[in-house]
Amino acid sequence: MTMAQAHLIGVDWGTSHLRVFRIGGAGAVLEVRASPAGMGSLAREGFEPALWEALAGWEDVPVVCCGMVGARQGWVEAPYARAPAAPADLAARMIRAPTDRPVWVVPGVAQYAASGDLDDVMRGEEVQIAGVMDGNATGLVICPGTHSKWVDVQGGRITRFRTFMTGELHHLLSQQSILRHSVGESATASAAFLAVVARSLDGESLSSALFSIRVATLGQRMTQADASAALSGLLVGAEIAAARREFAVGPSELVGSPDLCRLYAAALDLAGFGRATLRDAGEATPHGLWRIWTEASRT
Amino acid sequence: MTMAQAHLIGVDWGTSHLRVFRIGGAGAVLEVRASPAGMGSLAREGFEPALWEALAGWEDVPVVCCGMVGARQGWVEAPYARAPAAPADLAARMIRAPTDRPVWVVPGVAQYAASGDLDDVMRGEEVQIAGVMDGNATGLVICPGTHSKWVDVQGGRITRFRTFMTGELHHLLSQQSILRHSVGESATASAAFLAVVARSLDGESLSSALFSIRVATLGQRMTQADASAALSGLLVGAEIAAARREFAVGPSELVGSPDLCRLYAAALDLAGFGRATLRDAGEATPHGLWRIWTEASRT
Repeated sequence: MTMAQAHLIGVDWGTSHLRVFRIGGAGAVLEVRASPAGMGSLAREGFEPALWEALAGWEDVPVVCCGMVGARQGWVEAPYARAPAAPADLAARMIRAPTDRPVWVVPGVAQYAASGDLDDVMRGEEVQIAGVMDGNATGLVICPGTHSKWVDVQGGRITRFRTFMTGELHHLLSQQSILRHSVGESATASAAFLAVVARSLDGESLSSALFSIRVATLGQRMTQADASAALSGLLVGAEIAAARREFAVGPSELVGSPDLCRLYAAALDLAGFGRATLRDAGEATPHGLWRIWTEASRT
Repeated sequence: MTMAQAHLIGVDWGTSHLRVFRIGGAGAVLEVRASPAGMGSLAREGFEPALWEALAGWEDVPVVCCGMVGARQGWVEAPYARAPAAPADLAARMIRAPTDRPVWVVPGVAQYAASGDLDDVMRGEEVQIAGVMDGNATGLVICPGTHSKWVDVQGGRITRFRTFMTGELHHLLSQQSILRHSVGESATASAAFLAVVARSLDGESLSSALFSIRVATLGQRMTQADASAALSGLLVGAEIAAARREFAVGPSELVGSPDLCRLYAAALDLAGFGRATLRDAGEATPHGLWRIWTEASRT
């Protein structure tokens, strides 16, 4: 028995994580490693050694990176591609890192307003989208997370998107605010969660509803689990309420962590979007990197 | 010349501050001291020594305290008075601290829903309100801050109120979120602030508008000062937009720090509430403590 040979190394490098993928001939992921060496913990001269350490013992094949590593404050700046952007546009704008071995960094995508002003940006989600939307696919993709993205894809191109700070608000409120005494574990798509999503879709005010979670746990009529459900329900509901004023209501591809995707899928269904297709970002990212690399090899 | 004699010591004791007031015959504040010995920095056995240290050299007259010091997790629990609540109701429910010298703690106010569930709470603002609303006053009082309170006062009683987590959200977002790179000093009631208040009153989504501040500073079309104005404008605007669905639109008394009151006054005027009267919380609190003490002495 011979070990399958890697053709590409994919790297997902964000502020708080580094994940590397050994990718075989047809884009199959052969092996995955995760390291805590996120950008946030590294000085500029620390990036290259951290990468080689993460790849120790793997084949000397091309490396393609995505995520905040390509931001101005990252390792190698890969200036944004402009929407509408297809995987081939990302491939054409990859930047070579100053390393002996070939390492490339995929750009993010920027959207401009009619006035010419920068309107929104993404870094990393464009690769997940390349990983789940085939050649000429059209539809709505939602990437829930720290900075959730709602993305219109037309004929395989990212045409329009909007960012919501939902995950970051959830983190700050559950860890650092007065609500940290009230909420427990991560929420699931419970009846309590859906009841609060419904109130939030009806336009309930976030900042008074947040305090009401504190009051309800003070009054001991709400458990920690229900308080977690209420916090997530308010934030996810507010995101969907705002997004449905800007995006067509209909089925979507949800790309993210499986738990978070299940939560969003239940809320989207309640909001009238129908059934979403759930895609694991841990698979979408190496698939997207393979696809972008394939586009680059074609030219 | 003789020094005016104190008749009462007022104490405003919150999570992060301790302020003490020497109060003379007619309720006049003769002297103020501030100490960093907030509740958050003290164990239960530390409260009494911290108080005596703050009052060193002052007359041995009765002491009346308000604020989170009377919460369950504070020094001496003073259970909430139930709305509707007048200063006399607060006076009747003061709790004596376990000290040799007479020290009293003023209760907060709790509001219950028709179902009997605890609906909202305040601790400290009830004293500010007693300080600015005379005997039979009726009107809207707004206490902007970490947890902003909108309060209906009828015939001198607190009849109904709602809390908004505006100040806490502002603190978390400006200090701990990705926006910390974008915003500068505290906002003033500038044209930039009012433009964003107007958008927020029109129902703009908070979590996408927050990220747009980050994008606008990335694109370098927005200064730090305008980013601060935008963050405050979004949060204050969202509070007023929600509150005006629940409270009658009209003139109000604004009680808080002078800078914050000026910001709210401009936003309230824009939202159709007319001109607010600005009251400094640093004066309202000792005045309210004096008034509650006077009520207690009557019985």
